[in-house]
Amino acid sequence: MKKISAWFRIILLSIIIHSASASDSDPLQDYCVPRPDLSPIFLACKNSSLVTVEDFVFSGIKSAGDSKKTGFSSIPVTAAVFPGLNTLGVSFVRADFEVGGVNVPHYHPRATEVAFVVEGKIYSGFVDSKNRVFAKVLEKGDVMVFPRGLLHFQMNVGNSRASIIGSFNSQNPGLVKIPSAVFGSGIMEGVLEKGFGLNAKELSKLRKKFSS
Amino acid sequence: MKKISAWFRIILLSIIIHSASASDSDPLQDYCVPRPDLSPIFLACKNSSLVTVEDFVFSGIKSAGDSKKTGFSSIPVTAAVFPGLNTLGVSFVRADFEVGGVNVPHYHPRATEVAFVVEGKIYSGFVDSKNRVFAKVLEKGDVMVFPRGLLHFQMNVGNSRASIIGSFNSQNPGLVKIPSAVFGSGIMEGVLEKGFGLNAKELSKLRKKFSS
Amino acid sequence: MKKISAWFRIILLSIIIHSASASDSDPLQDYCVPRPDLSPIFLACKNSSLVTVEDFVFSGIKSAGDSKKTGFSSIPVTAAVFPGLNTLGVSFVRADFEVGGVNVPHYHPRATEVAFVVEGKIYSGFVDSKNRVFAKVLEKGDVMVFPRGLLHFQMNVGNSRASIIGSFNSQNPGLVKIPSAVFGSGIMEGVLEKGFGLNAKELSKLRKKFSS
Amino acid sequence: MKKISAWFRIILLSIIIHSASASDSDPLQDYCVPRPDLSPIFLACKNSSLVTVEDFVFSGIKSAGDSKKTGFSSIPVTAAVFPGLNTLGVSFVRADFEVGGVNVPHYHPRATEVAFVVEGKIYSGFVDSKNRVFAKVLEKGDVMVFPRGLLHFQMNVGNSRASIIGSFNSQNPGLVKIPSAVFGSGIMEGVLEKGFGLNAKELSKLRKKFSS
Amino acid sequence: MKKISAWFRIILLSIIIHSASASDSDPLQDYCVPRPDLSPIFLACKNSSLVTVEDFVFSGIKSAGDSKKTGFSSIPVTAAVFPGLNTLGVSFVRADFEVGGVNVPHYHPRATEVAFVVEGKIYSGFVDSKNRVFAKVLEKGDVMVFPRGLLHFQMNVGNSRASIIGSFNSQNPGLVKIPSAVFGSGIMEGVLEKGFGLNAKELSKLRKKFSS
Amino acid sequence: MKKISAWFRIILLSIIIHSASASDSDPLQDYCVPRPDLSPIFLACKNSSLVTVEDFVFSGIKSAGDSKKTGFSSIPVTAAVFPGLNTLGVSFVRADFEVGGVNVPHYHPRATEVAFVVEGKIYSGFVDSKNRVFAKVLEKGDVMVFPRGLLHFQMNVGNSRASIIGSFNSQNPGLVKIPSAVFGSGIMEGVLEKGFGLNAKELSKLRKKFSS
Repeated sequence: MKKISAWFRIILLSIIIHSASASDSDPLQDYCVPRPDLSPIFLACKNSSLVTVEDFVFSGIKSAGDSKKTGFSSIPVTAAVFPGLNTLGVSFVRADFEVGGVNVPHYHPRATEVAFVVEGKIYSGFVDSKNRVFAKVLEKGDVMVFPRGLLHFQMNVGNSRASIIGSFNSQNPGLVKIPSAVFGSGIMEGVLEKGFGLNAKELSKLRKKFSS
Repeated sequence: MKKISAWFRIILLSIIIHSASASDSDPLQDYCVPRPDLSPIFLACKNSSLVTVEDFVFSGIKSAGDSKKTGFSSIPVTAAVFPGLNTLGVSFVRADFEVGGVNVPHYHPRATEVAFVVEGKIYSGFVDSKNRVFAKVLEKGDVMVFPRGLLHFQMNVGNSRASIIGSFNSQNPGLVKIPSAVFGSGIMEGVLEKGFGLNAKELSKLRKKFSS
Repeated sequence: MKKISAWFRIILLSIIIHSASASDSDPLQDYCVPRPDLSPIFLACKNSSLVTVEDFVFSGIKSAGDSKKTGFSSIPVTAAVFPGLNTLGVSFVRADFEVGGVNVPHYHPRATEVAFVVEGKIYSGFVDSKNRVFAKVLEKGDVMVFPRGLLHFQMNVGNSRASIIGSFNSQNPGLVKIPSAVFGSGIMEGVLEKGFGLNAKELSKLRKKFSS
Repeated sequence: MKKISAWFRIILLSIIIHSASASDSDPLQDYCVPRPDLSPIFLACKNSSLVTVEDFVFSGIKSAGDSKKTGFSSIPVTAAVFPGLNTLGVSFVRADFEVGGVNVPHYHPRATEVAFVVEGKIYSGFVDSKNRVFAKVLEKGDVMVFPRGLLHFQMNVGNSRASIIGSFNSQNPGLVKIPSAVFGSGIMEGVLEKGFGLNAKELSKLRKKFSS
Repeated sequence: MKKISAWFRIILLSIIIHSASASDSDPLQDYCVPRPDLSPIFLACKNSSLVTVEDFVFSGIKSAGDSKKTGFSSIPVTAAVFPGLNTLGVSFVRADFEVGGVNVPHYHPRATEVAFVVEGKIYSGFVDSKNRVFAKVLEKGDVMVFPRGLLHFQMNVGNSRASIIGSFNSQNPGLVKIPSAVFGSGIMEGVLEKGFGLNAKELSKLRKKFSS
Repeated sequence: MKKISAWFRIILLSIIIHSASASDSDPLQDYCVPRPDLSPIFLACKNSSLVTVEDFVFSGIKSAGDSKKTGFSSIPVTAAVFPGLNTLGVSFVRADFEVGGVNVPHYHPRATEVAFVVEGKIYSGFVDSKNRVFAKVLEKGDVMVFPRGLLHFQMNVGNSRASIIGSFNSQNPGLVKIPSAVFGSGIMEGVLEKGFGLNAKELSKLRKKFSS
């Protein structure tokens, strides 16, 4: 019986782990905390008698991620790492910047972001679909909104570390970082050479840099 | 001509100021900053050439509201006070607590809330629709989620001031504070006496307290 | 084989019974009647060849619930008891009132309600988020709408029994009854004492009354 | 000034009366009762200080419409006739049947319907998109659901008058009656002859019957 | 073990094949290609490492369906036949017409359609819910839009074959063909005789024609 | 009077032309064709008696745009140029490629795209949010789907002109072309140098190329 059980769980897991469906629309119940033994699942809610307050509290962004190497670190907290968010239509992120650190141009395909400056001076902006930049230096306590799907970026222009908390109106906003998505993903050379007006050598350098 | 213009604006304003429609669904454009001269409007976007970065930055929660008298203060930032949020499906709030200060049981009819503890020790919880309480003491850096439409509450149980930033997945989440909505709104005595098992004197005391 | 089957069903049930996902948005098919042997499920539709007209007809509100003891009874009919509603974005309720019976202040976190008076004279109202009450005595044939998420209440002010049919624009509108959610759920005393301006004795009486 | 005012109102009315936009998604405020002097409008909410309980109560379906001539009458109550429904995502209808009266095959493009039998015996059914009929005789107190966009129909098969209250999860569900939409709208003969396998004479008879 | 596996898959399949839930709202992830071995499923996404470009390309409408017999053929491509569309909120159809061929009056309960004329002259139109027809002859390169849920129809009025590509804003728009839904589904005679003003003989002829 | 009318229209226009609100959710009426004299408006529908079939037919993509200079041309058809699409949740585009022509990496923030190859051989692909490329050469009659918000691109790899018709599930999908949004919009040098690992000279060359 044990054996079957194990085999059963593997199949179930493989089905459920990648399941999806749904959307960030109105929930159909108060909450739907995924079963912890099958986590992360987005199909099967825990029996509500097993749900505790810990399912709705997240303590993983008390300290910054490691930004030593690149000058920037981020800890995205979606329903994948904080299952209690499942079906609730929200998620969040902590971002930390060394002096001069940069959050490269990126966008979230499925959410608007509200960014609160916890500390530091951060040049922060977005580009609308007419190629206009809206950017300025934010200070502690400032809040900026990045409309859904638009390119945005940030840079620590102060002389001490900086930190931001961002909130999203989706449980899984998605993240597309332009440099790696364009130059590190393997798009055919011809498309990139013509698209960016680069010669083979220039392109090759960029591709090397961003291929993982 | 001046006269007509003034008269025209009054009519227009009276129409538009209270306009509404729409919903927190997908936006139909990058953003829709309401015209500043007719603000707050939710119908007519500013010509995008008049939109500036200031439309997307809010600096009004750098310092706490006044919580001296009641022990608690909050600064809700919806599209009504930060017009750039219009159509973007997000808003936020800053809440500050004196020692022992209480954010009374309340709910937001149109949004889930994510609460970040900026400083302090805050007992924080919500009640699901089966009357179960999920509550615990949060500390600096903790994050708690309050599912859409559910009753929640907070109390500063530390020995210094406390502060929270909350985010909502609606540009206008709404706020129903239970004590004043129930006892300060003028619901017929009979309903409240029977509903809460109060006698006339007890009810009268509560009504006096919460009527404004 | 039998054994495994039983065991399999138990696991499956425990997963599915509490499943959720989805939302009251546009359906993806004509209907999705949950499989009866695994009911209530909101994931797996019955094979449509097994669906019959009985799946779409509900006969359980032909007579009133028992309102003798408290003066009020209600029979909520959501997708949990009428599975054919699954994915269709609607549900309903029958409420019956003895003379003087009260439907205590409550709200539905996920739906607007339309209430039809089938018989009787019913004082009926709601409170908006500015604490204004909108209430009046409804008579047979009157219809009143309670906007999504707002507090509402009813009382039979006639001299015979009264009855109402309510309709919701969600398959699971949720129900938060204020007296029991606030005083019967176990919210920490300090929060309630400060929040409602009650002393320990007054609060204790209310808590006793509404704790189940 | 009077003149201009009149002229102004005419323009405004002509713009606003046919306005629309929006959708049955989450509301952005508690309610949005259209301004009564410009009704029906779906853009400009009344100043909430002018809103009264009468805006949320409808008394126009206390008695049946006139079903003498055709055996059937219906009073649809959408936001167009009950403005308080604006943005709330619900509407309703009263239908009355003489003995043998028929509610012809029709559908609502934008809503699911829940039908409550107030009195009488009503054969009631719908057709799914695989052309299966789900139909049965409903009696007083029975409830049937018609999924969004599917063809449905009703017939009084009892020997006394019958009456139904229907509820919709849209403020404007729409109504397409098949006989008049197909044969009374002026679709080119060739399409109907080939589509229904009718000869010119048969078609002509049907078109005469349903052209208004 | 083999046996159990087979039996397990049958159960799982029977559950999943008819599953549904969800809706055409915002996706919760980039894509969710259903597992191919359990297809068509709308619950369990393939592990993304198994997803290939072939999951997002469809080659089944390169040539026309067989329109010889009836003068018309259509190949609807929904998520059921092109699983990669799952959760993406789109689908499409290819329709081909012999000279004089007719696409009978029909509607899609869950989508607006955009129709591109690839070749030919096609009389094309729809009926709004006030029974007004909007129709004209479209030529190669013309595009016409059919609003969600409204009756529409097409006829090849040129003297060569015609072809159309239609796109929908739902992964499963649904299709209700009026002639067969009304006369071929088995709706009770009384309803149709009264509804369409047909005598028993006329009705019988129509029913015979459209019953399958 | 004339004067006022002109002045009135200017104000009205300036308000309405940039209005927006709304969303691609369920429409609230059959259609809402904007008033032609105030076009493009998304608030005020034409009186339906003034609506004609021409409002629902678009003939502007019968021939290709001019792709001589750059090798690529596109004609996006949103509600802005085809007002009848307003509230219907769909739009489309025609794209034409010279031999070797490239549609640069871009994305649509608010829609999934379905692309039909009308003629030619087109290398076509997208990048998911894990930086995986899904690409292949499409031929006449092939259909490819690009999930909402993901980067995609195309290149004519055949030896004759190529042409595509794309459909979107939004009336205004938006378009962000990466090369010009990143290098032609004026994002601060520091962000781009660090973000892409470019030196000042390399960056300057790219900025010159894409600044308009």
